[in-house]
Amino acid sequence: MTKTISARLLALAGTSLALLGSPLSASIPPPPGAAELAQRGDDIAWSITEDLTTEIGPRMAGTEAEAAARRWAVARLQAMGFANVREEQFDMPVWVRGEEQAWLTSPFLPQKVAITALGTSASTGPRGIEGDIAYFESFDALVAAPEHLVKGKIVFIDHQMASAQDGSGYGTYGRGRFIGANAAAKKGAIATVIRAIGTDDHRNPHAGGTNFEAGVKPIPAGAISNPDADQLVRQWKRAQQMRKSENAMGYVPEPLRMKLVLTPQNLGTKHSGNVIAEVPGSDPAASPVIVACHLDSWDLGTGAIDDAAGCGIVTAAAKHVMSAGQPRRTVRILWAGAEEVGVFGGKAYFEKHGTEKHAVALESDFGADRVWRIDFKLPDSAKGLADRLAAAVVPFGVVRGKQAANGGADIGALVQAGVPAIDLAQDGTRYFDLHHTPDDTLDKIDPAQLRQNVVVWSAVLAILANSADSELP
Amino acid sequence: MTKTISARLLALAGTSLALLGSPLSASIPPPPGAAELAQRGDDIAWSITEDLTTEIGPRMAGTEAEAAARRWAVARLQAMGFANVREEQFDMPVWVRGEEQAWLTSPFLPQKVAITALGTSASTGPRGIEGDIAYFESFDALVAAPEHLVKGKIVFIDHQMASAQDGSGYGTYGRGRFIGANAAAKKGAIATVIRAIGTDDHRNPHAGGTNFEAGVKPIPAGAISNPDADQLVRQWKRAQQMRKSENAMGYVPEPLRMKLVLTPQNLGTKHSGNVIAEVPGSDPAASPVIVACHLDSWDLGTGAIDDAAGCGIVTAAAKHVMSAGQPRRTVRILWAGAEEVGVFGGKAYFEKHGTEKHAVALESDFGADRVWRIDFKLPDSAKGLADRLAAAVVPFGVVRGKQAANGGADIGALVQAGVPAIDLAQDGTRYFDLHHTPDDTLDKIDPAQLRQNVVVWSAVLAILANSADSELP
Repeated sequence: MTKTISARLLALAGTSLALLGSPLSASIPPPPGAAELAQRGDDIAWSITEDLTTEIGPRMAGTEAEAAARRWAVARLQAMGFANVREEQFDMPVWVRGEEQAWLTSPFLPQKVAITALGTSASTGPRGIEGDIAYFESFDALVAAPEHLVKGKIVFIDHQMASAQDGSGYGTYGRGRFIGANAAAKKGAIATVIRAIGTDDHRNPHAGGTNFEAGVKPIPAGAISNPDADQLVRQWKRAQQMRKSENAMGYVPEPLRMKLVLTPQNLGTKHSGNVIAEVPGSDPAASPVIVACHLDSWDLGTGAIDDAAGCGIVTAAAKHVMSAGQPRRTVRILWAGAEEVGVFGGKAYFEKHGTEKHAVALESDFGADRVWRIDFKLPDSAKGLADRLAAAVVPFGVVRGKQAANGGADIGALVQAGVPAIDLAQDGTRYFDLHHTPDDTLDKIDPAQLRQNVVVWSAVLAILANSADSELP
Repeated sequence: MTKTISARLLALAGTSLALLGSPLSASIPPPPGAAELAQRGDDIAWSITEDLTTEIGPRMAGTEAEAAARRWAVARLQAMGFANVREEQFDMPVWVRGEEQAWLTSPFLPQKVAITALGTSASTGPRGIEGDIAYFESFDALVAAPEHLVKGKIVFIDHQMASAQDGSGYGTYGRGRFIGANAAAKKGAIATVIRAIGTDDHRNPHAGGTNFEAGVKPIPAGAISNPDADQLVRQWKRAQQMRKSENAMGYVPEPLRMKLVLTPQNLGTKHSGNVIAEVPGSDPAASPVIVACHLDSWDLGTGAIDDAAGCGIVTAAAKHVMSAGQPRRTVRILWAGAEEVGVFGGKAYFEKHGTEKHAVALESDFGADRVWRIDFKLPDSAKGLADRLAAAVVPFGVVRGKQAANGGADIGALVQAGVPAIDLAQDGTRYFDLHHTPDDTLDKIDPAQLRQNVVVWSAVLAILANSADSELP
């Protein structure tokens, strides 16, 4: 675990909310009591993250654990003094993991490989399947390949993700996971194995969903860890070399082969739900500010950075705004359900509330490392507001981005429909070391950086919740 | 992975063997060709490590994989031009891993825990066992506890290992693994779970042996990863707190409970073996220098740092000495079998060769990070030799230690019997991040530090192999 936040940022975090009264936010009065709150420090985000990950742990969408997390969430948000705390249920298809084992079986003695099934993967059956590996260096190479190289084989997609502060590699490298199995299935592959979409070197594969088009029959699909992918590639190269040299001697030895036992199951339609809580605004006519995170997690870790910490951050910020004095606008907290497996919670929220007016939407769902950039997607009327916000977060080391905010998965439908958005972009340099792995656990969170998140979110939310009707819809 | 070797050390490594001709080793002529060898660089240690871990992978003592590793080793050592390459077989009791799963089952919803069985652990049977946790902060606390706190329970030994450059914490922290289950079994525990003896924060538990005294019936014994142990402790504290508050209300809720499914098996007596190779000395009357490593590995990783790299290092050094011109003394390379599970190879070597004269013994079995200290356990006659050796390794950043060398596991019986020993102590700061885990894989090795090892070993071995009869027995 790297703890890189500077002492200077930490010192600044200690005076956080007091800065809301600085000339930078001159047109908005500082929320009463803010200076004292900041002095008291903040363990709200940490305690939400610790308690949720300890008492509930993994909370896969549509399972009893996610339902228990919702009950826990409702009780916690009520105890914190929020208003209108409620669960809004919806239905969704549930897929759960089964046994997961894999071996490289030829041309050497069998060696075990660390694998995890991708969401919506088909089952190999308990006896497993074995096949030749068809190697592709990337998703693009698979797409370009003729069918006969794929048919009847286990497709392996290499393509090692590089880390980036803004997480921008996820789209490019992630295609192998998002749609690789679909492309392989269409060419007749019997299974797909990808190098996990992750930047670490530990033998914990990264889970995540994969998507099959309507009409394409799902095949077994798994991800293996980077060290296992390295081993596969070393063996593949040696198998190629042996084939070359032994072909010359008149026979063709075994290629690289793999055996997979993956027995996930589709459980059909089950309940999931969003948990919602509010800080009621003083002006009932003013549209609410919505701050989101997601309550569900993948099942290998305890979902600490993804996304208990996000719920901790947005809720701590809302609590600070509430404690500092009633804001003009309502702050609505959305702990979305079933994000990981298809953003069912975000869609359900939009179906139910999409026609209501929302002033602006923000989401925290990129770990617990420090916020380093603020991005806006606001109406022209909010130009002054954006300047105030950008100025307010400068003291915490946050720079102003030049790109449009994109919002986040659970508020994606709202933003798509025109609701303004702000991104408080977190440092994602090590996010994909942990993302969807068994290693997504509480110990990976740096309390100092988590605190910086809360301070930045509190500053931003206090300004937004008191913004004028002339600034936001 | 941390790559900390300095550019300066690297540059020095490039001129390694040339230094053997410096005035520091004035009484010994520089081996012919040494300077040229050093210029060519060295990928011998790397290629041994890569090939063994790729083509054989995990090689648990007494298994078919270890036998395959011996065949591989004999072929490799012969191909490298060593003399008297041979396998010396011995028998040993074989224990193999089965299914391994564990859950924290109460007072919260069941949560899965990453566990591995300790060598010689009994089986829980396929249906597993469940019991209350008896918490002990250390091995000493377990020893001090009255029997009624242990009887019928699953003992948990906390005690988080701290990392140390010289690995000196292994003895202290390791007791929970070495003899914790034995102590628990004697007090009537139904199983033992320890916080793994490791310094990392990944959910890969550290394997290793545990020992039951004669007459003590083995119980199931496992190790859980540090993040899992953290989670267990958090839940245990909450369970304690709930008991306190709910006791006051008149009833006693569930304590922390755990379920274990560990199904290892004892396979009885099987063959293992040592692989031996030699650089024949020019003086048949001179006693040999023995350099050792171990060929077997634990089964979770591919045994790259433990101990393929050690075999790579000592063998590369011996090859350099051989290539530089015939030394006066024979250099005997011992790739010991079955070290991890009880040093059976070292004992077998001693039984067969313990009465022969040995000039001095060295072993490489502490990873692949740089050598930082040289320690001696030599006769008085070797005072000048020790000075020459210490001076020869100074340019590579190696300091002279003030403590007696202890030799290493596989040469332990020799050293115990009076054979002189030298330790080339490696930096162990991150050794216990990886030790006995699935993460002990090739990618964890820093080629630059591995090369520094070879250079230091080559310098030392060239001097030792040409030392005088008046210096060493």
